[in-house]
Amino acid sequence: MLVKLQQYRTIWPNTALANCSGTVSIIDQTKLPHVFEIACIENLHQMITAIKTMQVRGAPLIGAAAAYGIALAMQEDASDQHLQSAAFSLIQSRPTAVNLNWAVQRMLNLLLPLTAANRNEAAWREAANICDEDVLLNQAIGQHGLSLIESAYQQTSSIVNQSKVFNILTHCNAGWLATVDYGTALAPIYAAHNAGMNVHVWVDETRPRNQGASLTSWELAQHGVPHTVISDNAGGHLMQQGLVDMVMVGADRVTSTGDVCNKIGTYLKALAAFDNQVPFYAAVPSPTIDWTIADGLTEIEIEHRHGDELAYIQGLAANGSIQNVRVIPVESKAVNPAFDVTPARLVTGIITERGIFSPDKLILTRQD
Amino acid sequence: MLVKLQQYRTIWPNTALANCSGTVSIIDQTKLPHVFEIACIENLHQMITAIKTMQVRGAPLIGAAAAYGIALAMQEDASDQHLQSAAFSLIQSRPTAVNLNWAVQRMLNLLLPLTAANRNEAAWREAANICDEDVLLNQAIGQHGLSLIESAYQQTSSIVNQSKVFNILTHCNAGWLATVDYGTALAPIYAAHNAGMNVHVWVDETRPRNQGASLTSWELAQHGVPHTVISDNAGGHLMQQGLVDMVMVGADRVTSTGDVCNKIGTYLKALAAFDNQVPFYAAVPSPTIDWTIADGLTEIEIEHRHGDELAYIQGLAANGSIQNVRVIPVESKAVNPAFDVTPARLVTGIITERGIFSPDKLILTRQD
Repeated sequence: MLVKLQQYRTIWPNTALANCSGTVSIIDQTKLPHVFEIACIENLHQMITAIKTMQVRGAPLIGAAAAYGIALAMQEDASDQHLQSAAFSLIQSRPTAVNLNWAVQRMLNLLLPLTAANRNEAAWREAANICDEDVLLNQAIGQHGLSLIESAYQQTSSIVNQSKVFNILTHCNAGWLATVDYGTALAPIYAAHNAGMNVHVWVDETRPRNQGASLTSWELAQHGVPHTVISDNAGGHLMQQGLVDMVMVGADRVTSTGDVCNKIGTYLKALAAFDNQVPFYAAVPSPTIDWTIADGLTEIEIEHRHGDELAYIQGLAANGSIQNVRVIPVESKAVNPAFDVTPARLVTGIITERGIFSPDKLILTRQD
Repeated sequence: MLVKLQQYRTIWPNTALANCSGTVSIIDQTKLPHVFEIACIENLHQMITAIKTMQVRGAPLIGAAAAYGIALAMQEDASDQHLQSAAFSLIQSRPTAVNLNWAVQRMLNLLLPLTAANRNEAAWREAANICDEDVLLNQAIGQHGLSLIESAYQQTSSIVNQSKVFNILTHCNAGWLATVDYGTALAPIYAAHNAGMNVHVWVDETRPRNQGASLTSWELAQHGVPHTVISDNAGGHLMQQGLVDMVMVGADRVTSTGDVCNKIGTYLKALAAFDNQVPFYAAVPSPTIDWTIADGLTEIEIEHRHGDELAYIQGLAANGSIQNVRVIPVESKAVNPAFDVTPARLVTGIITERGIFSPDKLILTRQD
């Protein structure tokens, strides 16, 4: 997608020249939205740090970063021992990320049978494949979602300044910054915007980590998609006022029955959408569907993150520096569940690279 | 209520001694929760500034502050002209606050018929009456709400560390800081805590102005009531997990049919409460009920405040200073509706000083 009118991915290799090591470039997401900075990752250790400190975040992007982490490790030392210790360290860097484990296993399966001499080149090629596949997957999600928006757009009645506007509300960041490119929930929105439709995005701030306010808004602004940041509290009111035509979110896990586990607060938006007859969609690559789980409410354990994520907020101070400020009294504690589960009864459909499925027909997307 | 183990109200007069002018003390709420500071208001001009800058806020407290504003004005100059210009300036200081207008009118009705010589003393006495009446009203709300909590407490099954805990979720600040003392939604909670019940309060952060994170948490901490700050996104998940026994909020306006207009985001919590069979109550003094309005969704105009309230957050920086930091990109705009309307169908009951009424029986509370 576009940043300052240039096409970017979130991660890309700088090809190794003769006698010169390859490196990997990433967009440093800890500095967004205030500073756009490319970080150059030169070795495995730096890639692990980038994942741990969330310079790269978002399940698909973490997977791609881990694959390049293995490639960097093979460049340093292509022995069995180093390959296995690199894989172990990468998996440990964000233990709950499913894609990270998947990507590392894929690299191991490819590289372990090879001789050490052949591993370096194969690793870089496979990491690039993982990235390209993620892009294709998200493009397919975008095209399926586009057809949905197109047909709803025909029927929408929202008129602003004498022109038709299609208002989509999204929560958290399921945009291209969370993937290699295009994003999941934002892929259909980019596709609609690029196709000339007048889409406008309500961006939930997404407390406590503010992924909406800091990342979704930034990437939409850079690509030129009209959008407005709102507090997480405002979405229900906007739906009551007829100002939301569709809700589109990503998901961290979807059960076989269509329950959607996503960033905390998603459930509240789904309730409001249902109460106001606004369609509610989750857009996910099909591997996000966990066929082993039927009841999201009882079977998915919700990660609790540190209360300090709520107690402190990072932002741009008047002097131009990025600062953390404390917003709750020192005497008060905070708890911070990171995800919630939206029951399938509130979900209109799940958009995957294979098409759009109502929660009770989700089994039709299964191909494995 | 207690601050540092001492009893406080939010506003009180410092009696005029012979040959010495009276002043009014207020808790400067712009500095909470990080600094507890009493400001001394010496004249009308300072009181208007205190209201405008939200050193005092909350409808009942603004009314009391305006009454003392008139008293300070009468001390300066008790002429008809000064009385009327003081009244006008006070009403202009926060044009949308209903209690402000009500308190100023009450002072005018009392003072205009008096001779100038008698106005100063009468004004100070009436301002004190307004404060005492607010305290009695809130105490009555507290006692009615207490009976509700007591009977629910008998049935609750939440056990934490082998003892029974009654979990109440609240949104925004409807505590004693918004009134002269006791608060509205928090009055029953203080009453239950003081009666020895093991109540615990989930405090919604309440973006964008963070009244929950900064004021509700602070006053509960000072009074020793167990509480935990949560993001506005978390309440639905907590209800799904059975961790909320009751929702208790204040309201800015209640319609004759029981629709509740309150801080933005209240509607989302009411939806979640309904979806999880958690009782949802609004606690208000009966003058908050607007008998001229039947449909809250179409008849109440919702105030939109400046988007900068969302774009900037105030907090305590590492160096101990209070700073504003920007949290959204400069390229993005924000909109900020300040209130929403919870339809009566989601409301279990309205607690007033006259008792507890289901929304469809609200007319029984009418005595005027």
